[in-house]
Amino acid sequence: MPRTRSTLPARGPVRLGPDARAALRPATADVRTGFWHARREVNARTSIPQGPGLLESAGNLHNLRLAAGTAQGEFEGAYPFVDTDVYKWLEAASWQLAQGGEQGTPEERQLAADVDRIVSLVAGAQQPDGYLNTWFQVRKGGERYKDLRWGHELYCAGHLIQAAVAHHRATGRDELLDVARRFADHIDSVFGLPGSGKPMDGIDGHPEVETALVELYRETGERRYVDLAGYFVDRYGHGLLGGEAYCQDRVPLREATNVEGHAVRQLYLLAGATDLATETGDAELRAAAERLWQAMTATKTHLTGGLGAHHDEEDFGDPFELPNERAYCETCAAIASIHWSWRLALLTGEARYSDLIERTLYNGFLAGVSLDGESWLYVNPLQVRDGHTDTGGDQSARRTRWFRCACCPPNVMRLLAGLEHYLSSTDAGGQGLQIHQYVTGQYAADLADGASVAVRAETDYPWHGTIALTVEETPADSPWTLSLRIPQWCREYRVRCGSRTYDQTDAPLADGWLRLERTWAPGDRVVLELGLEPRLTAADPRVDAVRGCVAIERGPLVYCLEQVDHPGGGLDDIVIDTARPLAVKQRPDLLGGVTTVVAAGRRRQIPDIGWWPYRSAEAAPEPAPSGEPVELTAIPYYAWANRQDGSMRVWLPTS
Amino acid sequence: MPRTRSTLPARGPVRLGPDARAALRPATADVRTGFWHARREVNARTSIPQGPGLLESAGNLHNLRLAAGTAQGEFEGAYPFVDTDVYKWLEAASWQLAQGGEQGTPEERQLAADVDRIVSLVAGAQQPDGYLNTWFQVRKGGERYKDLRWGHELYCAGHLIQAAVAHHRATGRDELLDVARRFADHIDSVFGLPGSGKPMDGIDGHPEVETALVELYRETGERRYVDLAGYFVDRYGHGLLGGEAYCQDRVPLREATNVEGHAVRQLYLLAGATDLATETGDAELRAAAERLWQAMTATKTHLTGGLGAHHDEEDFGDPFELPNERAYCETCAAIASIHWSWRLALLTGEARYSDLIERTLYNGFLAGVSLDGESWLYVNPLQVRDGHTDTGGDQSARRTRWFRCACCPPNVMRLLAGLEHYLSSTDAGGQGLQIHQYVTGQYAADLADGASVAVRAETDYPWHGTIALTVEETPADSPWTLSLRIPQWCREYRVRCGSRTYDQTDAPLADGWLRLERTWAPGDRVVLELGLEPRLTAADPRVDAVRGCVAIERGPLVYCLEQVDHPGGGLDDIVIDTARPLAVKQRPDLLGGVTTVVAAGRRRQIPDIGWWPYRSAEAAPEPAPSGEPVELTAIPYYAWANRQDGSMRVWLPTS
Repeated sequence: MPRTRSTLPARGPVRLGPDARAALRPATADVRTGFWHARREVNARTSIPQGPGLLESAGNLHNLRLAAGTAQGEFEGAYPFVDTDVYKWLEAASWQLAQGGEQGTPEERQLAADVDRIVSLVAGAQQPDGYLNTWFQVRKGGERYKDLRWGHELYCAGHLIQAAVAHHRATGRDELLDVARRFADHIDSVFGLPGSGKPMDGIDGHPEVETALVELYRETGERRYVDLAGYFVDRYGHGLLGGEAYCQDRVPLREATNVEGHAVRQLYLLAGATDLATETGDAELRAAAERLWQAMTATKTHLTGGLGAHHDEEDFGDPFELPNERAYCETCAAIASIHWSWRLALLTGEARYSDLIERTLYNGFLAGVSLDGESWLYVNPLQVRDGHTDTGGDQSARRTRWFRCACCPPNVMRLLAGLEHYLSSTDAGGQGLQIHQYVTGQYAADLADGASVAVRAETDYPWHGTIALTVEETPADSPWTLSLRIPQWCREYRVRCGSRTYDQTDAPLADGWLRLERTWAPGDRVVLELGLEPRLTAADPRVDAVRGCVAIERGPLVYCLEQVDHPGGGLDDIVIDTARPLAVKQRPDLLGGVTTVVAAGRRRQIPDIGWWPYRSAEAAPEPAPSGEPVELTAIPYYAWANRQDGSMRVWLPTS
Repeated sequence: MPRTRSTLPARGPVRLGPDARAALRPATADVRTGFWHARREVNARTSIPQGPGLLESAGNLHNLRLAAGTAQGEFEGAYPFVDTDVYKWLEAASWQLAQGGEQGTPEERQLAADVDRIVSLVAGAQQPDGYLNTWFQVRKGGERYKDLRWGHELYCAGHLIQAAVAHHRATGRDELLDVARRFADHIDSVFGLPGSGKPMDGIDGHPEVETALVELYRETGERRYVDLAGYFVDRYGHGLLGGEAYCQDRVPLREATNVEGHAVRQLYLLAGATDLATETGDAELRAAAERLWQAMTATKTHLTGGLGAHHDEEDFGDPFELPNERAYCETCAAIASIHWSWRLALLTGEARYSDLIERTLYNGFLAGVSLDGESWLYVNPLQVRDGHTDTGGDQSARRTRWFRCACCPPNVMRLLAGLEHYLSSTDAGGQGLQIHQYVTGQYAADLADGASVAVRAETDYPWHGTIALTVEETPADSPWTLSLRIPQWCREYRVRCGSRTYDQTDAPLADGWLRLERTWAPGDRVVLELGLEPRLTAADPRVDAVRGCVAIERGPLVYCLEQVDHPGGGLDDIVIDTARPLAVKQRPDLLGGVTTVVAAGRRRQIPDIGWWPYRSAEAAPEPAPSGEPVELTAIPYYAWANRQDGSMRVWLPTS
């Protein structure tokens, strides 16, 4: 069986430059059925096609026409970054087009036409010198770069560049890339260090252009885009924006000891810094990125992979400050975390970065979009209390059709549309294929000597733990290494490779990778079995918010309780009995088909507290859980808020 | 010994009208030495005198001059409610002047001159038809009532009215009262139900004018101010402001089942509604206030009495959502809670309302001002984490000299300056004196038949539990009842009254009141001893944030740990050993003289968590606390953040 599309790696995000100092290079996969295929089908058939209509009704396209002078009226939208909703949708649509066949289905042709139309709108709005921002062109009378802290002009440029790179990679066409280059060249003519001859020394309040500029270099070969990105990255932390952590301006990245401030801003900046370290070999910047990732995951990451503890300023919060009801965990932060971790995975070759990607993909990210692909969560809390009063608005704990600040929906679309490029890699030496995430489909890569390899995978992961791999293409007689990521959550596994069987006691594991070096032949089979026993998870004792609680997990999935599955009361009086075994139920009828975990619990008998909920700790020790036994049905967290409003919780008290 | 000032009750807030349906009427006290005297001295000698200078440098007085046309320049300040800083300071200064002697000290004469000067500025800024708001007069070109949701015009009017009532009560002078009446009359001419002939049907986004209008009625006898307050109270909850909980517009108060939205807005509205119920006998409104107080204290109150769980929108949050690091607990919300609870205490006669006042005064309120009276906390968290990154600004966990939104400092000043009016009452039937809060000084009241009673109190409360009371003035041969509040926190107490001794097993307790009915003679002594053993407190299990934790309390004081007292590490790895006894230390050297509580604890040995802080609950049960024993020194919460930056926590893990 031949490889489906040997040129795919070039048609996704993060195509490393020829001099990149990365341990790995991205490969690609053809996702054919299974869990992620289903989510991507919804993305392709519902979310992305609805984009143009939503961008029209929200006014984003109207604003482009205003800037182009082809329409009249008022600017629509409350934020200076509304153009980015268009750009992220264009990027999503481009990655989607990259998957299409030569002829195209009617839906693909419609999508291509929509892209053409919207690219024209974008191009028409650009000013002769390359500048492009509808807010400032229309609402601010052409004022530029006067409010870098809040203006988002370079942030918008960054998303435009990413869209243009995607459009060029996907279609080979230049229209949008030309627009992006003109804007990048304009920015390059404006911004630079004092003494550089450039008129301005400044950075954007919202990092993003940095990672985009490195990608623009990768697409065009223009090294000065890397230099410009490097300039921006290193100007943060010097007070140009007033020194606020919110804008990443409190401390230079190279000196920082933990992530801080606005989570998405921090993460986009770190993605850009990691891109830079990758393309330049800057060891100090790489060390900072690795240090900050370690600090972030160890002290500021929710169990779901969600990031951001404060609604106020969308901030990371302090170490181990990980609230449940008020977890912010913006969907965009999950996406930015995946962007950043993937760059670190490639740069370092370490599997732990893909461990976090897996956790984030299946939980904190995927919860952001409804099962039908039509409504969204901006924030992703780990608890909704009994008696919750929803405030509505973008930060609602209820799914919303679209947001005033609609950053998350098209961000989800672009990640899902390009997801096949985050699943596998080949090492820089070209000695093998690494499978980071398990899907049903085909993984393919080009090895060092020009030989191609392809491996077919069949799995019902994450519901079942068996991943059957068949070598489909291989050089005849030169050995190469198939590396399989053994997930960090996995305590028991087994792999059969030809006549050999390994398990967790004797597998050739290195750095999270199970490495199988062989001279392979087409038809060779490898079967990996990951133990999917449901498990109870506790947190470091410094995570005050979940003291005395456990969470249910199975495989990469975090589970939660929803009130709808527990009639007769709320969830805040429920206690889990950790001594009783967890059971697994296949529920093809539920939420598009899920595996639930069933646990034993009780509804705590809560005595009348009068008017004061605090009592003597000595006089009345907390009673042992008593009261009505209740069967707890846990569903995957990603599927919550798809049925009816009500309470929800991930962390369950044990007594 | 004669009573010091028999007319004092009329010179404080909440002077009930002649037809008020309240169980109690406020009496007053002359606070002479001791805990609150010391805090009031700082208020009188530092905080209040610094007010005019701060109001000048922040631009508030400048804005009044702009509105009067006696100065030129730009409006200063970022908010439409900056006038209220002036009004609250005027109220504070007026209550302060009310305490002065006939001649006055040089400081009192200076204060009186400052008040005169600023009253003149206010009067000069008023427009001919009574309207007064510098933001709209200066910045908005005279626009009025176009943005009720955010404009704060009626809110500002409310604080003006309160200041005017205080000024009139304290000094007997009319200048400011005339200004307030003209504005109130203007408002009355503008706002009313459809069909009333008034041009507008509307309410202010920030309740406050309602409670002020009832006080204006009390001062002037004009019943239509009560009617206007009633109109406003009942128009909330009908969508006039868009239906947001934030503005108290989601549901009518009469139908509400719990407090919600912006905490200060909710509490001022409830203070006004309780004033109304008191003056009108509206049983439904009274029932709503009692129901909401019960719900608030049982489900939405921090241990310190602090209120408000969200930084975002300064919101109450959901039931039992009581975070520590992100407790909002605005100082103004504590003050508003005291205002409201005092009105309920008078209306119902129940001691529990003064229980909450005591808790709030000593903890959530008093923490808002530094020991030197020169810096402030806007928010009052119950925890500052190790590794905390402070964001600065108004919501900083570090004390600030003044705020951009400077609502809290003058609010603290006015409560402290008028505090003697929240300490005691006489019952509506005039049968006795109730002591709500214990201070050293004299409590005095007029009984039904025109007889006066006075009781001298000597105590070192809250450091010591003995309160010695001596009857100083009493009718010769008619019995009356001295009622002493036995605090809700107190488990053991004893009272000697003549030859009788009662304790918690046999005292004549009713509704929280120990009632001593006697025919008293001058010199009669009552000695109340409240047991002040330090105690450990736990929370209802639904308060997830403090599961597995205890707090140290002693008497009315909540205690906390500060990092400065625990060298060698932070606080987030500390565990308290609840099996070891708590010890008490008198520390006259510390923080102006406090009693500390010393407990035994350990620094938990935290294993290296690698990059992921979550682990199997089965495989590695949390280890019993081990590691270095550490003596925990707890200080009163109100005194935190007076030495050096660092971590702090009220709730301490037990394992």
